[in-house]
Amino acid sequence: MNDAASTSFHTGAGEVGLVEYKDFLSEEPFTFECGQSIPSFQLRYETYGRLNQARNNAILICHALSGDHHCAGIHTLEDRKPGWWNNMIGPGKAIDTSRFFVISSNCLGGCQGSTGPASINPVTGKQYNLDFPFITIRDMVLAQKRLVDHLGLTELYAVVGGSMGGMQVLQWAIEFPEMVKRILPMATTARQGPQTIAFNEVGRRAIMQDPEWQGGDYDDGEGPRVGLGIARMMAHITYLSDKGMDRKFGRRRRKGSENDFSLDVAFEVESYLRYQGQSFINRFDANTYLYFTRALDYFDLGDQTDTLEEAFEPVRAKTLVVGFTSDWLFPPEQNREIVRSMLRVGKNASYVEVGMDFGHDSFLVDSPFLYELVRAFLRKEPK
Amino acid sequence: MNDAASTSFHTGAGEVGLVEYKDFLSEEPFTFECGQSIPSFQLRYETYGRLNQARNNAILICHALSGDHHCAGIHTLEDRKPGWWNNMIGPGKAIDTSRFFVISSNCLGGCQGSTGPASINPVTGKQYNLDFPFITIRDMVLAQKRLVDHLGLTELYAVVGGSMGGMQVLQWAIEFPEMVKRILPMATTARQGPQTIAFNEVGRRAIMQDPEWQGGDYDDGEGPRVGLGIARMMAHITYLSDKGMDRKFGRRRRKGSENDFSLDVAFEVESYLRYQGQSFINRFDANTYLYFTRALDYFDLGDQTDTLEEAFEPVRAKTLVVGFTSDWLFPPEQNREIVRSMLRVGKNASYVEVGMDFGHDSFLVDSPFLYELVRAFLRKEPK
Repeated sequence: MNDAASTSFHTGAGEVGLVEYKDFLSEEPFTFECGQSIPSFQLRYETYGRLNQARNNAILICHALSGDHHCAGIHTLEDRKPGWWNNMIGPGKAIDTSRFFVISSNCLGGCQGSTGPASINPVTGKQYNLDFPFITIRDMVLAQKRLVDHLGLTELYAVVGGSMGGMQVLQWAIEFPEMVKRILPMATTARQGPQTIAFNEVGRRAIMQDPEWQGGDYDDGEGPRVGLGIARMMAHITYLSDKGMDRKFGRRRRKGSENDFSLDVAFEVESYLRYQGQSFINRFDANTYLYFTRALDYFDLGDQTDTLEEAFEPVRAKTLVVGFTSDWLFPPEQNREIVRSMLRVGKNASYVEVGMDFGHDSFLVDSPFLYELVRAFLRKEPK
Repeated sequence: MNDAASTSFHTGAGEVGLVEYKDFLSEEPFTFECGQSIPSFQLRYETYGRLNQARNNAILICHALSGDHHCAGIHTLEDRKPGWWNNMIGPGKAIDTSRFFVISSNCLGGCQGSTGPASINPVTGKQYNLDFPFITIRDMVLAQKRLVDHLGLTELYAVVGGSMGGMQVLQWAIEFPEMVKRILPMATTARQGPQTIAFNEVGRRAIMQDPEWQGGDYDDGEGPRVGLGIARMMAHITYLSDKGMDRKFGRRRRKGSENDFSLDVAFEVESYLRYQGQSFINRFDANTYLYFTRALDYFDLGDQTDTLEEAFEPVRAKTLVVGFTSDWLFPPEQNREIVRSMLRVGKNASYVEVGMDFGHDSFLVDSPFLYELVRAFLRKEPK
């Protein structure tokens, strides 16, 4: 497809088309779960579709570790790629912007326009870096709540997201049960397991042992690019699946390197991974990576209660959890556990396991079955 | 258990006890699959048990990537740990040294007494480093063949090994069908898949981007310790399983860090991984790590033939392949594929899948079921 065709594809009927982000500034101090505070913060967000008069058609999208607020449409006609969930969100799509007012918020602690370690500490006039308070999933949600309040909403028709986004979704339903009517967490978990903590720790080690990290005090645009690239390459493998990689790359050699014996890139899969690492270091802040992976590690919905069931007691949202057969980062069993725990305390919860080969990232992939599932779940129940 | 008890445990009845390694020097030039040659090489090895008069009771053990020739017994009474397969090998054990003459050979290209990148190039008087020829699994086997010839053997009762060792086992059966009577490869594959290539590539990037790597020309005892540690930490996760880690570590915090918010080690699993990384960099050469992971990547038994079946045509060994349900590095399906391909060309091959939660490393773990399986397979068939 040539550029012109590609662009018109993203602005045609059934597409949200050109969008702009907005910044919400919360001028009240924010106290984190760790006890530390910041005097104010900013969240970057986008909205698609229109809020209805009853103000009850808003859907909040929560993004994953390396995602952002830009989940649908394009920012300029030159954009080659639309937002990360453009296949899911748009007029007539599964999350239908002709029916719903969709809000996609960046996360507190992030590096894409929201306040995070790379932001200026108004007290010192310097970047926070490691002075930024450690963040939890609950902190992210409490910050988003201020945005939702600012938008004048007292009800969320649904909160939807995958992976780290799915954790936020669950937390939303627990923290604000009166407000959240439906939740749709995908490819997620109620508590981060040791294997995922272990992968995160390796990524953090790679970053923090890079001499350019400098204890987190690197200059803007500088930093532990090598370490962050390694962390991303490794993490990217965990988002895919053995089978999916076999179908996509197999053992294919790069052209011209078929008979090489060397340490250079020889296999297509190596080339792909390096590209992933390179493009990530150009768009993501290493300190945010450290903070977000730590937030994932700390995530355990049951840690304040005796059981996970008890943690779900407050929930009033109708719930659909979607797991993916080939997801080995947050395997089906961990998704199933959420629903099992909710059902044990009488919640309105269902679980669907989708047979897709794309691993953890399956929730981002084109799938008519998944679209239909989301669409059906978001349908208004007959009175 | 105190030290005295522990030592007597490793020297008592049913143990091979004190052992010594030997060095075999092959003074003939060796030409690698890549076309390069070295004038001579050394292999370090150990033997346990006695060769019988018919010289037909020898079992060759092939080790995995980070293993070595020391697979049973202890070197000194002060050793706290015996060889890596001591639970499998010994008088009366599954690989019974009162019946068999067991040979455990280090690999060409290694760093534990065999000729590899850290060895002195007799031509230049300097370390080979990256001048060492790229090695393949087949090269490892052809080098071991010289050792086996040197020991005066024309028959191997069995060749046994897991992971990279299992690849060597398969290659032995293909290269020397007249010699190899039985093979027992475990937790292995007939061709390295893209996911495993991808993990290897991340490890290599971590090593080669460490400034201390210096293009492979680091001094003895120096080198890319940070990068090698990262590579090992990551690889170690791939040797375990989600379930096994959950049982062993769960989300347990390190004592005193229960309520920490920090980037320091907080979870037990992090502490364990760091220890694995640290101990590895003290015993393993980074260049060997690069070469061995590349040898794994290049491994594809079917690459010289139209089909994998054709590659197995020469095999005459009775074959038992053992896969482990929780192994996601070389998953059951890849182990099964070996046997399926062999059966299609009429080979005497069986497959057993062992239900163990220890991931890829299951073959190293205490398992009466596995012992019985190995014992039964090694039993002499009635005439």
